[in-house]
Amino acid sequence: MNPPRTYGDYLALDEILGAQRPASGKGDWQTASHDELLFIVVHQAYELWFKAMIFEIDDVLKILSHGTVAEAQVALVVHRFKRVNEILKLILEQIRVLETMSPLDFLEFRSQLGGYSGFQSYQFRLLEAKLGLRRKDRLTYGDRQYYCDLDEAHQRQLREAESQLNLFDALDAWLSRTPFLEMKGFRFLDAYKEAADKIAAAERAAVDREKGLSEQERQRRLARVAGNAQVFASVTDTKQHEEYRTAGQRRLSYRGMLGALFINLYRDEPILHLPYQLLVGVTEVDENLTLWRYRHAQMVHRMLGRKIGTGGSPGYDYLKETVERHKIFQDFFDLSTLLLPRSELPPLPENFKQSLGFSFDVNDKVTSS
Amino acid sequence: MNPPRTYGDYLALDEILGAQRPASGKGDWQTASHDELLFIVVHQAYELWFKAMIFEIDDVLKILSHGTVAEAQVALVVHRFKRVNEILKLILEQIRVLETMSPLDFLEFRSQLGGYSGFQSYQFRLLEAKLGLRRKDRLTYGDRQYYCDLDEAHQRQLREAESQLNLFDALDAWLSRTPFLEMKGFRFLDAYKEAADKIAAAERAAVDREKGLSEQERQRRLARVAGNAQVFASVTDTKQHEEYRTAGQRRLSYRGMLGALFINLYRDEPILHLPYQLLVGVTEVDENLTLWRYRHAQMVHRMLGRKIGTGGSPGYDYLKETVERHKIFQDFFDLSTLLLPRSELPPLPENFKQSLGFSFDVNDKVTSS
Amino acid sequence: MNPPRTYGDYLALDEILGAQRPASGKGDWQTASHDELLFIVVHQAYELWFKAMIFEIDDVLKILSHGTVAEAQVALVVHRFKRVNEILKLILEQIRVLETMSPLDFLEFRSQLGGYSGFQSYQFRLLEAKLGLRRKDRLTYGDRQYYCDLDEAHQRQLREAESQLNLFDALDAWLSRTPFLEMKGFRFLDAYKEAADKIAAAERAAVDREKGLSEQERQRRLARVAGNAQVFASVTDTKQHEEYRTAGQRRLSYRGMLGALFINLYRDEPILHLPYQLLVGVTEVDENLTLWRYRHAQMVHRMLGRKIGTGGSPGYDYLKETVERHKIFQDFFDLSTLLLPRSELPPLPENFKQSLGFSFDVNDKVTSS
Amino acid sequence: MNPPRTYGDYLALDEILGAQRPASGKGDWQTASHDELLFIVVHQAYELWFKAMIFEIDDVLKILSHGTVAEAQVALVVHRFKRVNEILKLILEQIRVLETMSPLDFLEFRSQLGGYSGFQSYQFRLLEAKLGLRRKDRLTYGDRQYYCDLDEAHQRQLREAESQLNLFDALDAWLSRTPFLEMKGFRFLDAYKEAADKIAAAERAAVDREKGLSEQERQRRLARVAGNAQVFASVTDTKQHEEYRTAGQRRLSYRGMLGALFINLYRDEPILHLPYQLLVGVTEVDENLTLWRYRHAQMVHRMLGRKIGTGGSPGYDYLKETVERHKIFQDFFDLSTLLLPRSELPPLPENFKQSLGFSFDVNDKVTSS
Repeated sequence: MNPPRTYGDYLALDEILGAQRPASGKGDWQTASHDELLFIVVHQAYELWFKAMIFEIDDVLKILSHGTVAEAQVALVVHRFKRVNEILKLILEQIRVLETMSPLDFLEFRSQLGGYSGFQSYQFRLLEAKLGLRRKDRLTYGDRQYYCDLDEAHQRQLREAESQLNLFDALDAWLSRTPFLEMKGFRFLDAYKEAADKIAAAERAAVDREKGLSEQERQRRLARVAGNAQVFASVTDTKQHEEYRTAGQRRLSYRGMLGALFINLYRDEPILHLPYQLLVGVTEVDENLTLWRYRHAQMVHRMLGRKIGTGGSPGYDYLKETVERHKIFQDFFDLSTLLLPRSELPPLPENFKQSLGFSFDVNDKVTSS
Repeated sequence: MNPPRTYGDYLALDEILGAQRPASGKGDWQTASHDELLFIVVHQAYELWFKAMIFEIDDVLKILSHGTVAEAQVALVVHRFKRVNEILKLILEQIRVLETMSPLDFLEFRSQLGGYSGFQSYQFRLLEAKLGLRRKDRLTYGDRQYYCDLDEAHQRQLREAESQLNLFDALDAWLSRTPFLEMKGFRFLDAYKEAADKIAAAERAAVDREKGLSEQERQRRLARVAGNAQVFASVTDTKQHEEYRTAGQRRLSYRGMLGALFINLYRDEPILHLPYQLLVGVTEVDENLTLWRYRHAQMVHRMLGRKIGTGGSPGYDYLKETVERHKIFQDFFDLSTLLLPRSELPPLPENFKQSLGFSFDVNDKVTSS
Repeated sequence: MNPPRTYGDYLALDEILGAQRPASGKGDWQTASHDELLFIVVHQAYELWFKAMIFEIDDVLKILSHGTVAEAQVALVVHRFKRVNEILKLILEQIRVLETMSPLDFLEFRSQLGGYSGFQSYQFRLLEAKLGLRRKDRLTYGDRQYYCDLDEAHQRQLREAESQLNLFDALDAWLSRTPFLEMKGFRFLDAYKEAADKIAAAERAAVDREKGLSEQERQRRLARVAGNAQVFASVTDTKQHEEYRTAGQRRLSYRGMLGALFINLYRDEPILHLPYQLLVGVTEVDENLTLWRYRHAQMVHRMLGRKIGTGGSPGYDYLKETVERHKIFQDFFDLSTLLLPRSELPPLPENFKQSLGFSFDVNDKVTSS
Repeated sequence: MNPPRTYGDYLALDEILGAQRPASGKGDWQTASHDELLFIVVHQAYELWFKAMIFEIDDVLKILSHGTVAEAQVALVVHRFKRVNEILKLILEQIRVLETMSPLDFLEFRSQLGGYSGFQSYQFRLLEAKLGLRRKDRLTYGDRQYYCDLDEAHQRQLREAESQLNLFDALDAWLSRTPFLEMKGFRFLDAYKEAADKIAAAERAAVDREKGLSEQERQRRLARVAGNAQVFASVTDTKQHEEYRTAGQRRLSYRGMLGALFINLYRDEPILHLPYQLLVGVTEVDENLTLWRYRHAQMVHRMLGRKIGTGGSPGYDYLKETVERHKIFQDFFDLSTLLLPRSELPPLPENFKQSLGFSFDVNDKVTSS
């Protein structure tokens, strides 16, 4: 390839900067509503960032779709998530720019837009699908499907993405392959159960010890301790786990959940550190995306009140309800419920620990074993 | 006063920097859990900012409690809100700092804390009360009141704040005094009604004109138009407004709502510009506070999962529900529903407009009238 | 105009999302360096925001180019600056996204780019010119002009912008028309001089009073007091002001400087509040733009080290030097040097104050005079 | 330890919230200047964050002071830096809160402060010293030392910190121990030299090939290529490196520089990934700290103009000059100059690569070698 002649050629600035065409006025910027340019630019910038995030997520899916994911590639996935998170943090702030447009200013050209809204972004829904949001998870509005406003080609692409490996499932599969759960002299599940029982017993004893509790309060506390114990039990009891799954309270497979838990508990082991960063990364992606949905819903509330567009685009109440409902990696947040304090953690066998550490030492050579 | 001897004296740094005392370990920082210092500092910083915000809001309340609020004071209130908003934006970001503590790290000293949480901040609840959150608006958890974990003195102070003028009521009263709604040759309500009717008729006609709608879809759209028309009607129909109030859908008095609407619609008039900035400011305060509650709930989800503390401090599900429920200035967001496009706005009488404008002109003198 | 058929049509997404073409690999995204997409998207987003900012500034210039600027228009200018500032804060954060590309990743496709850089953005230089950066203020690099890498058409447009009214000059003219400097019973300059003399005398007395100063230290302090007094003197002494201007230390005209000072000192008067917000707004624009230049230079340092591109694009050392040198509204920052404490401020005549205040009062009518 | 009785006890809120005492007015908040509370709170929050950062850095120094740093500890250092960076990003934004205080508002109580400023923060200087800023690197102002305004005890503590291991030196020592530079069948320096020579030759050829260059321009470009080559040479030529050091252009030891370079070039190897993250982390710490210094200087410019306080505290011009001068890890930024594109990178011996990778594979067991 010949390098492009100029900075402007390279960035295709003629196309980028020529793509703002007002719907208000007579179709030129002399007669258009002043704030429409901002409105267009904000949404175009969103779409650029959506493209960039999809590109990163596609690469992650490619990496994770292999049966074997080498450590170097885990580092790459961590890096990809870091970028997606920086982009999400940026577009979260971008809402503040849009909010410099007042509701009254928006009204000036809103009716010219034919009733559609940012909700119709094909790329945003594609991103959600690739992350793992399933058709059945999505909130419909009225009796209409979430894709009804897309054209044929985009509907097809969306269905295609939904039928392919998504990030949630890819991570579930990768987590299910977590090694180390059983080693010579160490069975993770036994050790976990023992520690969890010990904690529950200590909590019960603490309630018993506490003076001056009313019987009602004592019963309430004991019920809480029992509830916590049941949650711990779901780690060692496949059946309990599957019941949570059937009830829609968990999505990870049993082995995937175990893998995620093990990595969280033993992340201080060097070999588990990058896997741990990966889990943190994807949790932050989901958290930031959820925040964006929430911010966006708030902004719609401020901009439009509670009125539904005559074109029927969904308003604040719909958007608000999607915020949590479309959260994809709930299991990774809920995981904290299953953690045990480090002090109660069953120790790994010494030979395991030794086999996995390196150090840069004073004798100028790497020490491994 | 003699000026303080040094920077450190002035800032009372001995007190500030000596006030971090770990609950974990043996009570010193050598043996404490490493992350506890961050945990303490984050919450102390929050409390400092809460104090600073309460100070600003108290001053606003003092200004607005006078029957007459001069224009210069409106500017001051705008300025106070700007500061509160900058603080809120900052503490929103502060959550990112706290999130560098992982759930497992928190577990290390969490049990030492005795089960209380940021939820117990007396100042935060005081701030909410001063802004206008009423006791009856608050979500209780289980059968316990939101104040049950405060000591006597704080409960008393909170009750006191709840019994005094709050920001919502102060603004409602101020808005109710908005002049200009009736002037020679101009009656705002008549003009608004005329414009709203015209818009509803145009929307109905648009539905009729649209080809190829199924009868079902046609009926749905007409119902939507009728719904919008009813909302507009609440502006000119006191009874409708009061019904919304009784149903808990509005809180502003009828005249307060009219004042807010008028200011929003005619904010381009110089005399209404600062009042408009004031309304924007308070809306942003509420939006940012709501965002903070949401961010905080998300962080709790990530940090604790869904488990309820044995001490009984409310968890993620409780916090999530307060986010919207404790939003105080809903009416100011909903107001956008009542706006009319500038092009449909009834014009103000010319003599009114003339009486309120100034300009710096080429002849080096102020032009007013 | 018919409304656009879909969200995608309206935003011209085919053009926007089809405008990323890699220089690395074989020209497609399968073979390109992974990070090149981010690099392109980041710069395209920048250019979108540059366009949006130029649009706002052009509107401000149009408003200010009239001999008379009505108060409503001052409010509009304030609003425009607020938007530009939100955009600048956003693109400041955008650098964090670009920094997820490591220097080594950049090296992979950097040589394909032909040596140009963000420095070559035509729109950025246009924005600077419109704000008031003059050709002669710009740093040249080596013996090359800052525009040498632009094509003919852009060079012409830049020259054109430089020959038209810029924001600095427009504001200077507007400030020069500030009324009120002389009113019946009030001469601003006399009052200012009196207060400044009083302050200088008090400062001298404070030095004299201080015990235990070495003679050397005493002389140093007195010299400082004298220096401050000379700066104050430049307010009442046209000649002094013009000397600063000739030395390049000030750019505002004498009357423009007086206007800015008066507005700052008496901004509590309602009629001066919006003009004051305008001055704050433009100062923030310049501060944020300066920050962006600085952030950008730091990022270049991190990304490229100190090496100069073979294509000769200017590196870190050049960029670092432009940061402060291209700051346009230095005078507005320096103005703080000339402020007097409110307690020393000469009071305005009572009849002036009365003529400029409004209030919403308890009797439900506007009070003005 | 008994757990603290309440949230307020735990956070020592009586001390924290009782530590704001105005210098203006009569010493109470009824009579003080309104903005003084914000001023105090902002600075107290800064000091809390300084304490939190120093705590993290102290822990890093403890880890790095051992002759052997295990991989798990490298992960911990990475984590500590991440936290410091989040804090730095936060206090960068905190300046926006302080900027809601206008210069005129500051003037109201500034003279009561006795002329000291944030510049006098003992903790900030301590932080800088611990990071590696040496006494001789610091800018003096006038003939006064940077510590002259501290009391005896703080001066002593500062000297103590300066005499102990700082982060720069600790990292230099750690980097100097980087293994792998020589392995069977691989000598890093030979490989690097070969690649660098090849690149220089290619750049020379490119200049020769380019048509239509004036002789002057040709010479300029060749000079640039030669300059780049000389920089590359400093990697293989200890003498060249030491000359840069003597001239103050580099600070890292020769072996430290080699280690940093090697880690940057081969960070895709799993074993080098955490060390690479560590280098990125410390570079970001320095970048964010530098940004804070710059933001702070800008804010002082806006707040005070260019006047020097009568108490003699250093003003904008001094602060501006420290920004770059007090940048500590310049070498890590400059390192980018020495990078080679991955495509030119000498490959590591295959047996090395094999010995360092792990993967979670389909057969449910860890694969290592």
